[in-house]
Amino acid sequence: MSTPLTVTVTGAAGQIGYALLFRIAAGDMLGDHPVRLRLLEIPQAVAAAEGTAMELADAAFPLLESVDVFDDADAAFEGAEVALLVGARPRGAGMERGDLLAANGAIFGPQGRAINDHAADGIRVLVVGNPANTNALIAAAHAPDVPAERFTAMTRLDHNRGLAQLAAKLGVGVGRLTRMTVWGNHSSTQVPDPSHVLLDGEPVGFEPAWVAEQFVPTVANRGAAIIEARGASSAASAASAAVDHMRDWVLGTRDGDWVSVALPSRGEYGVPAGLVSSLPAVSVDGEWRVVEGLELSDSVRAGLDASVAELTAERDAVRSLGLVD
Amino acid sequence: MSTPLTVTVTGAAGQIGYALLFRIAAGDMLGDHPVRLRLLEIPQAVAAAEGTAMELADAAFPLLESVDVFDDADAAFEGAEVALLVGARPRGAGMERGDLLAANGAIFGPQGRAINDHAADGIRVLVVGNPANTNALIAAAHAPDVPAERFTAMTRLDHNRGLAQLAAKLGVGVGRLTRMTVWGNHSSTQVPDPSHVLLDGEPVGFEPAWVAEQFVPTVANRGAAIIEARGASSAASAASAAVDHMRDWVLGTRDGDWVSVALPSRGEYGVPAGLVSSLPAVSVDGEWRVVEGLELSDSVRAGLDASVAELTAERDAVRSLGLVD
Repeated sequence: MSTPLTVTVTGAAGQIGYALLFRIAAGDMLGDHPVRLRLLEIPQAVAAAEGTAMELADAAFPLLESVDVFDDADAAFEGAEVALLVGARPRGAGMERGDLLAANGAIFGPQGRAINDHAADGIRVLVVGNPANTNALIAAAHAPDVPAERFTAMTRLDHNRGLAQLAAKLGVGVGRLTRMTVWGNHSSTQVPDPSHVLLDGEPVGFEPAWVAEQFVPTVANRGAAIIEARGASSAASAASAAVDHMRDWVLGTRDGDWVSVALPSRGEYGVPAGLVSSLPAVSVDGEWRVVEGLELSDSVRAGLDASVAELTAERDAVRSLGLVD
Repeated sequence: MSTPLTVTVTGAAGQIGYALLFRIAAGDMLGDHPVRLRLLEIPQAVAAAEGTAMELADAAFPLLESVDVFDDADAAFEGAEVALLVGARPRGAGMERGDLLAANGAIFGPQGRAINDHAADGIRVLVVGNPANTNALIAAAHAPDVPAERFTAMTRLDHNRGLAQLAAKLGVGVGRLTRMTVWGNHSSTQVPDPSHVLLDGEPVGFEPAWVAEQFVPTVANRGAAIIEARGASSAASAASAAVDHMRDWVLGTRDGDWVSVALPSRGEYGVPAGLVSSLPAVSVDGEWRVVEGLELSDSVRAGLDASVAELTAERDAVRSLGLVD
């Protein structure tokens, strides 16, 4: 048996949390490491989270050491080695962007501070709750003692959606494809880029017109299509992407592959340093390393610039609210 | 890579189905066998099942070969090697038992016939939808060409709930416990029996008063307690139990352990032959074998007799409806 890991999940009583927790407890995320789950919820959802904790016990997972439920961030992040920040304030009807960012600042600021003060030294943070990139920026800004690169946001769902569309287009299993990339913000400005994708290790060409007119809009609008079909938003596929992101971070990416991770830029590909942008990355020895030197097509370059402009505007807005320096 | 397996799931758009499908696609149930999922839903839920299929694709599971959605049982069970019958008619307000059994007969009869005519020779069926034991009996009766022992019903959730209660009582990890048993019907008459349980391979004594007054009622009423806490019924823990049941059946139970499986009795422990009753069983070479020769306490014996009486009454009721011989 490997050493136990402490995993904190926020928004634990929501639909993504519900799908996520059982995958973690089954060992899908951390392999044979026993896990201690710490669930954070707002007070009015604590009872529901307690119900989820009961069901987690009832599943008799051999790897699940404990489940504890909290409504206090300081307690929830005590000793956390992995943090999955799922709970966020969604945009309500008629809500301005400034209000949305302020509402999420009130969540991710204190959580960042709690991580700073209470998490384990090796803490790895994945922000799932939207606006994910800027929420990660806010959390990192409140955790000055934690290296900024320990705060990431999730574009793996977009990445996986891209792979699924390419696999369907080619009529092949998704496991035969590598080197999908999503650039920029996890928003409608995201740039799904199949231009470096390999099939069984060999380059595949995709028609630029198909990419522009079919592929990119399908990936970018997939969330709405799921809601249309299911009558509910993507939960299990989002949870699965979170599992993939954290598993790869902790246990390493596949040889020869890379994945899409939103992390603080060091200026790669012209993304201003410090912005949390999706970039291609490999995980080696438990750390993300951005894959550098890729050639960007004109359309990807233009798309990334537009997405970076959006990220910059979001950062400026939270800066004006005093949420980041 | 192992050979692919075809898995049919009914009630695919429901909450248990939603939790179950992603666990299967992740490899939690069948290890490294690639899977071809065939989802069956009633026509009005096909769109939701299509949405789930979209999300399954979006999760980019390397082991997931295909997902197809059907509203026709004959098509859904074509080539099935594993069938998880989750969809059932729940008891409505004021519904008499006869009406409930008839409504489920209209589901499980045709599904049994479709399995008989279309499934693969090695088909393994797990009925999750309630009344599960009798629904399995109905399905088996409509599949004369399939050995009856290929039809099982789920008491693994009760079994796992029992293990969780014992682990909490002892303050130990659930993985250190073996040989829990649930006898009888998956209903309020079930008999959770910890008397043979081992901790690290050694016998553990539980106070008869604690078992009678705390343990048995807690396990038997756990579903209601979950609904009370969550505001929704057990879905992910039920799905997890289905994963456990089928994984053990296909891949084998742990050495020295047994699990609880509702299967057609051959007269073991005085359960009339042919009744689908929960019994302790090991899985060897892909087949369940009932663990025989256990000593039953007077209270377990009395409880099992009462549960068998209920199963007999259910069988007589579906026999009078012409659903079984």
